[in-house]
Amino acid sequence: PEKSKAKVIEVAKNVRKVGQDDPRRIVHALKVGLALSVVSLIYYYKPFYDGFGISGMWAVLTVVVVFEFSVGATLSKGLNRGFATFLAGALGVGAHYLSNLCGDKGEPIVLGLSVFLLAAASTFSRFIPGVKQRYDYGVVIFILTFSLVAVSGYRVDEIIELAHQRLSTIVIGGLTCVIISICIMPVWAGEDLHNLVAQNLEKLACFLEGFGGEYFKDLEDGEIVVVSKSGKPLAEYFRNPEDGEAAVVSKSDKSSLQKYKSILTSKTTEDSLANFARWEPGHGRFRFRHPWKQYLKLAALIRQCAYLLEALNGYINSDIQIPPEFQRKIQDECITMSLESGKALKELSESIKTMTGPSLADPHVENCKNAAMDLKTTLKTALLENSDLLGVIPAATVASLLIDIVVCTEKIAESVHE
Amino acid sequence: PEKSKAKVIEVAKNVRKVGQDDPRRIVHALKVGLALSVVSLIYYYKPFYDGFGISGMWAVLTVVVVFEFSVGATLSKGLNRGFATFLAGALGVGAHYLSNLCGDKGEPIVLGLSVFLLAAASTFSRFIPGVKQRYDYGVVIFILTFSLVAVSGYRVDEIIELAHQRLSTIVIGGLTCVIISICIMPVWAGEDLHNLVAQNLEKLACFLEGFGGEYFKDLEDGEIVVVSKSGKPLAEYFRNPEDGEAAVVSKSDKSSLQKYKSILTSKTTEDSLANFARWEPGHGRFRFRHPWKQYLKLAALIRQCAYLLEALNGYINSDIQIPPEFQRKIQDECITMSLESGKALKELSESIKTMTGPSLADPHVENCKNAAMDLKTTLKTALLENSDLLGVIPAATVASLLIDIVVCTEKIAESVHE
Repeated sequence: PEKSKAKVIEVAKNVRKVGQDDPRRIVHALKVGLALSVVSLIYYYKPFYDGFGISGMWAVLTVVVVFEFSVGATLSKGLNRGFATFLAGALGVGAHYLSNLCGDKGEPIVLGLSVFLLAAASTFSRFIPGVKQRYDYGVVIFILTFSLVAVSGYRVDEIIELAHQRLSTIVIGGLTCVIISICIMPVWAGEDLHNLVAQNLEKLACFLEGFGGEYFKDLEDGEIVVVSKSGKPLAEYFRNPEDGEAAVVSKSDKSSLQKYKSILTSKTTEDSLANFARWEPGHGRFRFRHPWKQYLKLAALIRQCAYLLEALNGYINSDIQIPPEFQRKIQDECITMSLESGKALKELSESIKTMTGPSLADPHVENCKNAAMDLKTTLKTALLENSDLLGVIPAATVASLLIDIVVCTEKIAESVHE
Repeated sequence: PEKSKAKVIEVAKNVRKVGQDDPRRIVHALKVGLALSVVSLIYYYKPFYDGFGISGMWAVLTVVVVFEFSVGATLSKGLNRGFATFLAGALGVGAHYLSNLCGDKGEPIVLGLSVFLLAAASTFSRFIPGVKQRYDYGVVIFILTFSLVAVSGYRVDEIIELAHQRLSTIVIGGLTCVIISICIMPVWAGEDLHNLVAQNLEKLACFLEGFGGEYFKDLEDGEIVVVSKSGKPLAEYFRNPEDGEAAVVSKSDKSSLQKYKSILTSKTTEDSLANFARWEPGHGRFRFRHPWKQYLKLAALIRQCAYLLEALNGYINSDIQIPPEFQRKIQDECITMSLESGKALKELSESIKTMTGPSLADPHVENCKNAAMDLKTTLKTALLENSDLLGVIPAATVASLLIDIVVCTEKIAESVHE
């Protein structure tokens, strides 16, 4: 009993965390509950029931399968369902009519064959990337409705009556979903995509701002306080960088350094969000045909940069001893580069959030480039003076990865400009 | 008309490509067509129709939504659907009974409230990762069936009759799917996962085997034929490596170098395959509870290695001029390292495919390690002799990334051993 109690508590904690991570999930659950109760009660009350008969249950069915988390997904599923039902219904009636002409013996053969052919062709079309991405659900509903109508065994005039009922109940169910999902605290896929891209930029920035301090921490923790070239102690450098802003480099805060990892695998999420965003009407700061594809391009660049960070991350906490005097020589430039590129990315993220021009990031990008130039000269002299050349290589690699990151930052800045 | 004709031809080409890429897709489409025709005709013939009434359509519905590409996915959806229908049906009858006790006025309130609460709770549970991964479809069906039963407006004894009919038709539809999907050219998610992991290893190997030639090609294309330390011309080295095997390094074959990119984003596919594989019974060389999770661990290591390749890839075709004499010094070791780690990975991939011990890879791993040691010594002397230290850094970075890759290869070898 102790054990099971502990397990229940853990599950409860997990559930709570799911809600806390994104409170919109709770709202979404309540919205689905509301939509379903509304439709169910409409179906329950006699007047409606008398008009639509058992078809009313299609409204319930539609709500359950169509109501998705974001407005875009709901619209996409609803429209897919509506059009597919209409098209398949018409084709089904046609197939039915055709089979009637073939007499009693030919009827099941014609019906079976048409179901087989259409189902096989439609199922195959679901493998075509373009269809899969946008119309997958519609194709499923198409197969479903066509076979139901074709094989229903009713007379044609009965079928048309039935199809009319079914279509109108589906429209009722779909409209309920769309209205509730748009009117009550809507979740826009487009806005989510926008925020995700901005957040990912910020995660990169987090890592870069923290990296300098983390990589060179052995020196600081070690002997004396290292004094940077500008005369300030290095710790001071973090507390009070040139522009007077408080830098957010807390050395114990290692988890913030690992945040960027989620970017490595976020491609699927971004693709589906961009896909849903295309179905959404204009909302808030976004027009109807907002260039969502641009976000995907930007996201690809961000992921490229995250791969570089992943390579860089391997050097934090590596066991290889780097000659301290060499490290001391390059650390100023390295820290500046990572800090400034971090700041540039943060500004870019801000400018995406506020949808203003990214001009504030430009000076930081300039600083990065200058530091990269300085680093190249420093490296030249430092390498010449140094005897333990082998030990230097990991540090040199870090430096050269940082240079790549600066290049990547520049590209991202250009892309945000667009 | 010219334009539209060209477009039709292009679409047709695309469709053909989808089929050629994986012919099992065509088979799958035919299987779905078959299952649907079978169930539809059962539904169509009177004897069956008389027994089950309109509930027969649930068999059709089940086939359409349950039949998935792999056996695991079909089983998972079928079982989810069966159990969820059963559970929700029972609860629905309970809710119905309860609401009957509350009199005419209380009935709609109790029903509406219970639908609202259950739908909201179930929808929320779909956000919990564990539920989403394995039971997502079941929860949808649960909400659906519960609301349909609870609000149906029938008397309790009618409902039980209806639930019985519906459940048996769903079982018929589900069984048809499972039987057809297992008996006619089955597609096992587990086998797909197994092959995907082996393929990904091979893609890594492809890149590494080609990398040496690609990175050092400027030298060869350039002036004289460079003679490797062993006295053989370098081109010879590729055509006829030590072990007499024909190396597959064609310099023009750049696309084979880019294959590894697909690994960077394959996490979602692997996760879902592993998830489906758990539902599958033993088949071929796999037992029922094959350790599918091990594959995910291995896949994570492979992806780690792919990130390193991504960093390495940036140095191919980079514009930075590397001093030729330095490049000449390190190229032997670098080429050996990348070639041998490529071979080791290829052997590992083979040993996964044939499910034998990975002992054949061990000598290659040893070779890699030796080359890495050599490279370290060479670097030491080469760096001392060299004047243009700055130009050396990119090459040194490449070398150090290669060393990391060797470490990664070792880890993969260990993991395959398990």
